[in-house]
Amino acid sequence: MALIVQKYGGSSVADAEKIKNVARRIVRTREEGNRVVVVVSAMGDTTDDLIRLAYQITEKLDTRELDVLLSTGEVVASTLLAMALHGMGHPAISLSGAQAGIRTDSAYSRARITNIEPRRVVAELDKGNIVIVAGFQGITEDMDITTLGRGGSDTTAVALAAALKASVCQRYTDVDGIYTTDPRLFAGARKLKDISYEEMLEMVTYGFKAIHPRAVELGELFGVPILVASSFNDNPGTLIKKEVSMEIRNKVRGIAHDLDVAKITVVGVPDHPGIAASIFVPLAEAGISVDTIVQNASIKNITDLTFTVAESQLAGAMSVVRPIAESIGARECVSDARLGKISIIGTGMQNAPGYAAKMFDTLSKANINIQLITTSEIRITCIIEEALVKDAVIALHRAFELETED
Amino acid sequence: MALIVQKYGGSSVADAEKIKNVARRIVRTREEGNRVVVVVSAMGDTTDDLIRLAYQITEKLDTRELDVLLSTGEVVASTLLAMALHGMGHPAISLSGAQAGIRTDSAYSRARITNIEPRRVVAELDKGNIVIVAGFQGITEDMDITTLGRGGSDTTAVALAAALKASVCQRYTDVDGIYTTDPRLFAGARKLKDISYEEMLEMVTYGFKAIHPRAVELGELFGVPILVASSFNDNPGTLIKKEVSMEIRNKVRGIAHDLDVAKITVVGVPDHPGIAASIFVPLAEAGISVDTIVQNASIKNITDLTFTVAESQLAGAMSVVRPIAESIGARECVSDARLGKISIIGTGMQNAPGYAAKMFDTLSKANINIQLITTSEIRITCIIEEALVKDAVIALHRAFELETED
Repeated sequence: MALIVQKYGGSSVADAEKIKNVARRIVRTREEGNRVVVVVSAMGDTTDDLIRLAYQITEKLDTRELDVLLSTGEVVASTLLAMALHGMGHPAISLSGAQAGIRTDSAYSRARITNIEPRRVVAELDKGNIVIVAGFQGITEDMDITTLGRGGSDTTAVALAAALKASVCQRYTDVDGIYTTDPRLFAGARKLKDISYEEMLEMVTYGFKAIHPRAVELGELFGVPILVASSFNDNPGTLIKKEVSMEIRNKVRGIAHDLDVAKITVVGVPDHPGIAASIFVPLAEAGISVDTIVQNASIKNITDLTFTVAESQLAGAMSVVRPIAESIGARECVSDARLGKISIIGTGMQNAPGYAAKMFDTLSKANINIQLITTSEIRITCIIEEALVKDAVIALHRAFELETED
Repeated sequence: MALIVQKYGGSSVADAEKIKNVARRIVRTREEGNRVVVVVSAMGDTTDDLIRLAYQITEKLDTRELDVLLSTGEVVASTLLAMALHGMGHPAISLSGAQAGIRTDSAYSRARITNIEPRRVVAELDKGNIVIVAGFQGITEDMDITTLGRGGSDTTAVALAAALKASVCQRYTDVDGIYTTDPRLFAGARKLKDISYEEMLEMVTYGFKAIHPRAVELGELFGVPILVASSFNDNPGTLIKKEVSMEIRNKVRGIAHDLDVAKITVVGVPDHPGIAASIFVPLAEAGISVDTIVQNASIKNITDLTFTVAESQLAGAMSVVRPIAESIGARECVSDARLGKISIIGTGMQNAPGYAAKMFDTLSKANINIQLITTSEIRITCIIEEALVKDAVIALHRAFELETED
């Protein structure tokens, strides 16, 4: 019998009817002869509702208490799902993160899993139970409840699949797979049958929200294949797995985009050692992530320093950078929030030349000006005007023939 | 420093404002120089809402899963109360039943506390924390969550007070004390300063809903004084404690009543051994509690058997009794749902005669017919017509001079 770990997101268990729908899917997997472990998120907006309630009590939330509060959302969903399975005549049991042996450090609200001791999970599977585990949570050495932060339930599912040596981790939400680009932006987007961990990581980091990078990294580390599919239909999803195929195929696999981009330029900076650190260390200390950094060639020891941050962090970044710019004698400090990022991604690119040239040429022919460029081995990213992102996606999708099956 | 255990009911923490109100009361107790442990119930109707949600999933609820589900209600309230205390600048920590060391048997939905290991509670108190414990719940040897059933949070509070050797367990709800009789029935009812455990037990068993008998029994067993008071005002409450005073005083302490009473009479039963068992064993097996039982003197080996059940269980009881009555050759089987119970209670009664006579005489003068009578050492109960219960309460309150201070 194969062991399958399934994970259902909050939108899949948002009400009693949807929970019963999920239970029917689980039963089907069970009746196909599999041992099944299910990780579940909190119902619909439960987590947001609990946070709102907490803010009605006090403005400054203690993270230990908040973690205990939020962990109840997943516990509620897991018990209801177990009850739904009982109602359909199938033995099932819900376990909290603690009971499932999810041990974490004590960094409340963003805890990391230190190890998993799945004895209880295995014992319940051996009794013939379908095991429902409350996602997003774990327990410290001191028996205090923690939550795993963003992507927490995905992480629980992949980590459990690794610990149990499951054959696959199936992740169900309202998204039915990974597309060549965002279908809301371009109707010609095509769903991929499979994608490598590396490609997926670049996709999520550069604008795809389909799955959290933590879960993908963990899947890659332990070699757990992750299926991304919808809980609302039976369309085939996308399997995230090891580098897919050695055969010749389309080298660009997807186009990611991100509209949450702003650019800051410190103009006329005296170019001497330590200047970059004097700007970027305070930004890091203020919790602001700096993405692309470009420094122009120095003319008469004067240079311009340009970097990007998330649009939502622009105001904060400017308030840190302005006084520094003044103190180091820079001419001025300007920003532009109307930018977007567009990336082509594919493991095939790393050993084949010409992709960058084709990307720049395509954008140029579409009259799209490139402001900044960054690359990794399997990704090329251009920063362009926000209003032109959609045109860029469509032009690149056509140029790299992503409509065509691999 | 004295150690005080406080317990706040669901109506006292029904919303964010009420939680902050409770936090202010706790702070006051803390600032008077006490160590404080607080047991809290789920907010308002949370428990009922969760049960309703479960019934939307399936009709037959698994009690293990239901217990986990319901336990989240108290956890939510405990974290919010801890946050409210933080917001007021006071160190506090919430603990689940499991973390507080409340060990129980595994009788889900009605678990009994087997022992308490309050190491964590003591450690947190020693750190200067106000400790908030989620009521109503515990954990089995197998680390499974249980709930304690009716009166669960009261029981948690008194049991913790016993384990911690607290000087008092203060129980706060929307009721501000124990009255000589129900003030909604008779405006002349007077609040008692104190009452003995035994008297309180008879009061709650015979119609007072102010506190659950389990908590009172536990208080008596471990000698924990229990204060019953309101969380919405500062009126003095009623202290439940050891037999109060050796001085002469009013011997009747209170009048309890209960309208949920029905009577079944099996008429013309052949009087031979085993007949009673043939009726009452199947009733017990059907989960129906039989209260008063009266068997008339037998005439020519034919007798009538009369007993009372809760009105809500009358239909169920009749469906059990009718076929039995037929099979044992009884003449007929009749019932009356329009009955009430009225009880006078007081430890002073046990060594002084004349109370029963005075009760019967008072009811007779008020033209109230007594249908059945039962007694304990400190209680006399009459079953009368439901419509006359209010008149009976007022007549007895006057006759035994309960308006007068002790």
